[in-house]
Amino acid sequence: MKPMQVGLIGAGVVATGVAKVLERNQNEIMRRAGRGIQVTHVGARNLDKARSTLGIAADYSSQLEAVATHPDVDIVVELIGGTTLAKDLVLKAIAAGKHVVTANKALLAVHGTEIFAAARDKGVMVAFEAAVAGGIPIIKALREGLTANRIEWIAGIINGTTNFILSEMRAKGLDFGVVLKEAQRLGYAETDPTFDIEGVDAAHKLTIMSAIAFGTPVQFDRAHIEGITKLQATDIKYAEQLGYRIKLLGITRRRDHGIELRVHPTLIPAKRLIANVEGAMNAVVVQADAVGTTLYYGKGAGSEPTASAVVADLVDITRLHTADPDHRVPHLAFQPDAMSDAPILAMDQVITSFYLRLTVADEAGVLSRITGILAEHDISIDAVLQRESAEGERQTDLIILTHDTLEGSMNKALAQMQALPTVLAPIVRIRKEELA
Amino acid sequence: MKPMQVGLIGAGVVATGVAKVLERNQNEIMRRAGRGIQVTHVGARNLDKARSTLGIAADYSSQLEAVATHPDVDIVVELIGGTTLAKDLVLKAIAAGKHVVTANKALLAVHGTEIFAAARDKGVMVAFEAAVAGGIPIIKALREGLTANRIEWIAGIINGTTNFILSEMRAKGLDFGVVLKEAQRLGYAETDPTFDIEGVDAAHKLTIMSAIAFGTPVQFDRAHIEGITKLQATDIKYAEQLGYRIKLLGITRRRDHGIELRVHPTLIPAKRLIANVEGAMNAVVVQADAVGTTLYYGKGAGSEPTASAVVADLVDITRLHTADPDHRVPHLAFQPDAMSDAPILAMDQVITSFYLRLTVADEAGVLSRITGILAEHDISIDAVLQRESAEGERQTDLIILTHDTLEGSMNKALAQMQALPTVLAPIVRIRKEELA
Repeated sequence: MKPMQVGLIGAGVVATGVAKVLERNQNEIMRRAGRGIQVTHVGARNLDKARSTLGIAADYSSQLEAVATHPDVDIVVELIGGTTLAKDLVLKAIAAGKHVVTANKALLAVHGTEIFAAARDKGVMVAFEAAVAGGIPIIKALREGLTANRIEWIAGIINGTTNFILSEMRAKGLDFGVVLKEAQRLGYAETDPTFDIEGVDAAHKLTIMSAIAFGTPVQFDRAHIEGITKLQATDIKYAEQLGYRIKLLGITRRRDHGIELRVHPTLIPAKRLIANVEGAMNAVVVQADAVGTTLYYGKGAGSEPTASAVVADLVDITRLHTADPDHRVPHLAFQPDAMSDAPILAMDQVITSFYLRLTVADEAGVLSRITGILAEHDISIDAVLQRESAEGERQTDLIILTHDTLEGSMNKALAQMQALPTVLAPIVRIRKEELA
Repeated sequence: MKPMQVGLIGAGVVATGVAKVLERNQNEIMRRAGRGIQVTHVGARNLDKARSTLGIAADYSSQLEAVATHPDVDIVVELIGGTTLAKDLVLKAIAAGKHVVTANKALLAVHGTEIFAAARDKGVMVAFEAAVAGGIPIIKALREGLTANRIEWIAGIINGTTNFILSEMRAKGLDFGVVLKEAQRLGYAETDPTFDIEGVDAAHKLTIMSAIAFGTPVQFDRAHIEGITKLQATDIKYAEQLGYRIKLLGITRRRDHGIELRVHPTLIPAKRLIANVEGAMNAVVVQADAVGTTLYYGKGAGSEPTASAVVADLVDITRLHTADPDHRVPHLAFQPDAMSDAPILAMDQVITSFYLRLTVADEAGVLSRITGILAEHDISIDAVLQRESAEGERQTDLIILTHDTLEGSMNKALAQMQALPTVLAPIVRIRKEELA
């Protein structure tokens, strides 16, 4: 049987990985798929560069659209990123009856609904394992491995750059700015690291996982997104003293009245496995009613780890492309006519617990006034830590861990506490999740 | 569309979970699968008991074979365990053109080749996610998620009973016998715990993972199996001092001349994520060339976690049963005509490192003689720990960690060391893996 013919659009780091892995493991892949998979066409702006980077014999063209719709191409692999040209190419490939594999999380988090609908109409597959957590087969786990379950929540370390930075901040007691520079020097952070450190990349991935877990449409614009740029070494240290670590988590959770969808720094108990995921590694915890807690860990980025997911999708499509489209795995795990219309909850409706650090005057009655305000808002306290003030010092740090509460209630309590004359600086508030 | 009709054979803990999960999550499952899945027939010895345990309306029969071959049944779920009657029923179901789902690791590890061949001839699927690591979708990850990769090795905590016992031994400093009794009292160990504590259950699961990883036939009879019954609290303590934990691992690794397939207590660095998997939880680490290290964690046993895997298989079959059989995922991940004939290596050909504990006379020259023997066999030493002997004590403990060596060389060295007059007791030898 002639090999499945792939049109590869893009010639960057991941595309290079795809070319390499398909070449190096062609025998292993053929033995599994029962059919060869070959990159026959490449679309790239700079052809000379693409030829030398990819190092494979193929039909190279700078006409990306021509590759996306070429009659000899069975599957189009979109690896150029972005949401404008990429969207156009993916929709044209679909219209031309091509299956599509993409690693483009932004594209799917924002335009997934339109793209999946187009694919359904044409009876083609759009596969995107590489879009979330790189080489970890988390899309497959959520979409196929856990089909028996009502998924309750997902919490993931799904951005390697920020996890590397947080790991270094904790290990070395350094502040964010210092570690960011080191991360850039080592290649763990981009020159413009905004998408990573502000949580946008994580929110793209979380949006996709949330849709698959709960059968809702992708709604990136409804996600709450907070990065790690304001995190201070002090809070990492206090968290540690209280038995917690701080990670940038993407969290999505099913509640009675809707779905939580949020990315922010989060205290998690140090004894949880996910709290011990260090460096640029990714991990996703899934809580589901039948199976309980499962965790998936691996490299979330990089040339070959991401290529591993792209090629797995190519093998899936090779196996399944002859199957009746109605019997394939639905793009978003649930049948298109069985999607949920559960809304994404506004942030003040989210239920979570909190770490608070207050800089307070070291005088009688302060703690009582603060705990009084929390009690007024029905927020119960889990632990309190007051730093012993040095001799002559007039202020001290007061750390409070709360139990679960409505974020809206906490916002009100925070405003009242902040207004106290004995609260001397802006209160630091970090969300906390027990993850069990 | 009428629901897929399931014939459930068995009415034990897992069968109860399957009935419960299919019932409770029927809406969620239908939304995913696009079609209902219903247990319409139940085969069990004791019908009254089965009716009350399962609590579902179905056609109950004590004629197990009649259920396995019933014309109205689309998929047979075999949950009676054992390798005799279960084999017979599975083969009869296949012969009658039924798809089969089973959680029976022993059956597949021993008779998989015959069963998969029969299924292929009839064009039906035999699905077995529940046979390895309970609810963790590890079969799917290995067979579909990592298809791009040349898998190098797998190391797994794949028996919850023994991991619970080892966790307790470490946490409380107790010996095996004491903790086993506690585990039995708590329901973590069976009244006859032999299969678990002697490593047989883990070896069944490992055999299946190994076949899928490397494309070799299942060869349970070639596995090296060692349990945890001889493990002493002393060695757990010494390991901890050296930065290691002891876990019962199933390890399978590709070498130049064949495949390692072995279950035994193993020292692993305490900083590895898998070293921190506690209690009855399972975890599997997979090392593969493109993706690097991935880890999969969750409950490896229990009613609903195992049912989660069984039902996921039911959904897969529901989706795929109309697909051309040649395009389905092959039972053992590789196409039947592309299997490898790499042999399973004998234990003395295995490459691993070692922890040795020698009870030696506290006199000059002992260490030199012992290290001399190791050097003679080209075994290099990673670390040495000699316990300070108490005043008047004539003997002491000498702990040696080695680098990787051929097990055959170590056996020779051990024989020579054991023969030394200054070695006063049987040498304790535990294998060690760095897992990176």
